[in-house]
Amino acid sequence: MPMLEAWREKLMEKSSGFMNNTKQMLQALGYDNKQKLLIIHADDAGLSHSENQATMEALRRGLINSYSIMVPCPWFYEIAEFALQYPNFDHGIHLTLSCEWNSYKFGPVLSQEEVPSLVDAQGYFFKSRKEVLNRAKPEEVKKELCAQIERALSFGLRPTHLDSHMYTLGTSIEFLNLYREIGNFYQLPIMLNSKLITEVSGIKTVEFDLKNELVIDSLYLGNLTDFKKGKLADYYANALKKLQPGINMILIHPAYDTHEMRAITKNHPNFGSAWRQIDLEFFTSQQCEDLIKKEKIQMISWTEIKKLIYP
Amino acid sequence: MPMLEAWREKLMEKSSGFMNNTKQMLQALGYDNKQKLLIIHADDAGLSHSENQATMEALRRGLINSYSIMVPCPWFYEIAEFALQYPNFDHGIHLTLSCEWNSYKFGPVLSQEEVPSLVDAQGYFFKSRKEVLNRAKPEEVKKELCAQIERALSFGLRPTHLDSHMYTLGTSIEFLNLYREIGNFYQLPIMLNSKLITEVSGIKTVEFDLKNELVIDSLYLGNLTDFKKGKLADYYANALKKLQPGINMILIHPAYDTHEMRAITKNHPNFGSAWRQIDLEFFTSQQCEDLIKKEKIQMISWTEIKKLIYP
Repeated sequence: MPMLEAWREKLMEKSSGFMNNTKQMLQALGYDNKQKLLIIHADDAGLSHSENQATMEALRRGLINSYSIMVPCPWFYEIAEFALQYPNFDHGIHLTLSCEWNSYKFGPVLSQEEVPSLVDAQGYFFKSRKEVLNRAKPEEVKKELCAQIERALSFGLRPTHLDSHMYTLGTSIEFLNLYREIGNFYQLPIMLNSKLITEVSGIKTVEFDLKNELVIDSLYLGNLTDFKKGKLADYYANALKKLQPGINMILIHPAYDTHEMRAITKNHPNFGSAWRQIDLEFFTSQQCEDLIKKEKIQMISWTEIKKLIYP
Repeated sequence: MPMLEAWREKLMEKSSGFMNNTKQMLQALGYDNKQKLLIIHADDAGLSHSENQATMEALRRGLINSYSIMVPCPWFYEIAEFALQYPNFDHGIHLTLSCEWNSYKFGPVLSQEEVPSLVDAQGYFFKSRKEVLNRAKPEEVKKELCAQIERALSFGLRPTHLDSHMYTLGTSIEFLNLYREIGNFYQLPIMLNSKLITEVSGIKTVEFDLKNELVIDSLYLGNLTDFKKGKLADYYANALKKLQPGINMILIHPAYDTHEMRAITKNHPNFGSAWRQIDLEFFTSQQCEDLIKKEKIQMISWTEIKKLIYP
């Protein structure tokens, strides 16, 4: 991976030695070691009209500062038009290999014949990470994910980063390496975080190593317990209050709680329609804006990170 | 076309001579020549959640008695599950070659590489009938439409008829013959009507001949002038009042006027979201039910027609 090496060399020039910890990364990014840096990231743009509109609203409000787009989804066209119109908002490609919903289905950008290991009997993506892990052939994963990026590029998008829907690329070392390889090939930073890999996706700690990579130090993702207790907004407020120095990320899924969104997330309260409305409300609220100021949180962008890694 | 010949022979047995007019068709269907027969048909199922829910609602209410499904659309899965659960409602395949919306796009079931003449630079269907007419290669049209039907069949659907989205198959004799050929191959009656062909789609009267085919004698389709004047419901009521003996059809597009539907039909008042809500309301109303009774209108089904044509 020559680009990764170039990046490491660049970082070495800026730092006192080989960069293998957050402090050095912060230094290379030009920030103080004590600064609390934050990306507020909205996943799932393109999924639906409700998701698109809420994402646009939260971006315009200025509290979330990046989002990522699902190329295979029905409302891709609408969000892609927005991205072309507002290129200054950081937007990634939300690499998609699964569709978790019960009555709303989508499948690969490529035909079923090209990527048969990625689809169920009806040609849609599998619902769970586990099914993808058990069935998807790495060469087909690579082909499909590159096709998603190529489709976005051919549409005129100039993405700032890559991430992985449901963090399915964190289910095996092989997928994780593919993710790295694709990021490197397209010169796009990839979202990496140990909690996403070990807790959300499933690779054991012993199997992976994120040393010498730009990782998100601390990741905050709402949980079902807090949502059920009506404490989701409190969770986000607390995350802002307890933020530590380093690179932090809050991962959210803003959407309007509409007829459409309730149908998509039917029987799926986890990251469901009501949850997403809370995400929208909190991250467009005065409370959130005030907390960011009060806690002296410094928002950072994927654009900065991209410039550092792929100058 | 051996099936078509078998059908003609069947009709000849039942009628006094070669069947070339409506009266004979009605006889063959077992109805009195003076009866006012009616199909109320909802197009565009599968287009969106709002369209699906309204179609289901109108079918359950019992006033509309057939609908047709757009296989390439994002909400196909939801309506297909409904069709499997309620197989007794007549459902056709709404053969789709175009996508008329501005920010909501869909494309062929087959890959772009397989049917390059059917898609724009971004891989979506063309917006207008004219573009399809000018660019689509008949062999690719046939391949894609058969793939749409095969996809529905493999899903477990057992359609009762075929029709054509935006009646694009009525733009040329070649397409019209393809439509006939596909209907015959799958042993499914096709929706044929001279007004759809000459007024909506564009083949000149001199070029086509619907003799010896089962056609809809009179077709009623709401128009923009009445919609703008707030007279769409009146148009439907008048259609019911002035219905003539023979096979009649009212073509509608019921949908809930939601956030989703307004976004899909943005800048497209013709068959837009508000229009579709009126369709839903009128065809679930007591007024409509009363008129059908008062005017002694006999509802007929595609299932009856299918049994006659392909016994």
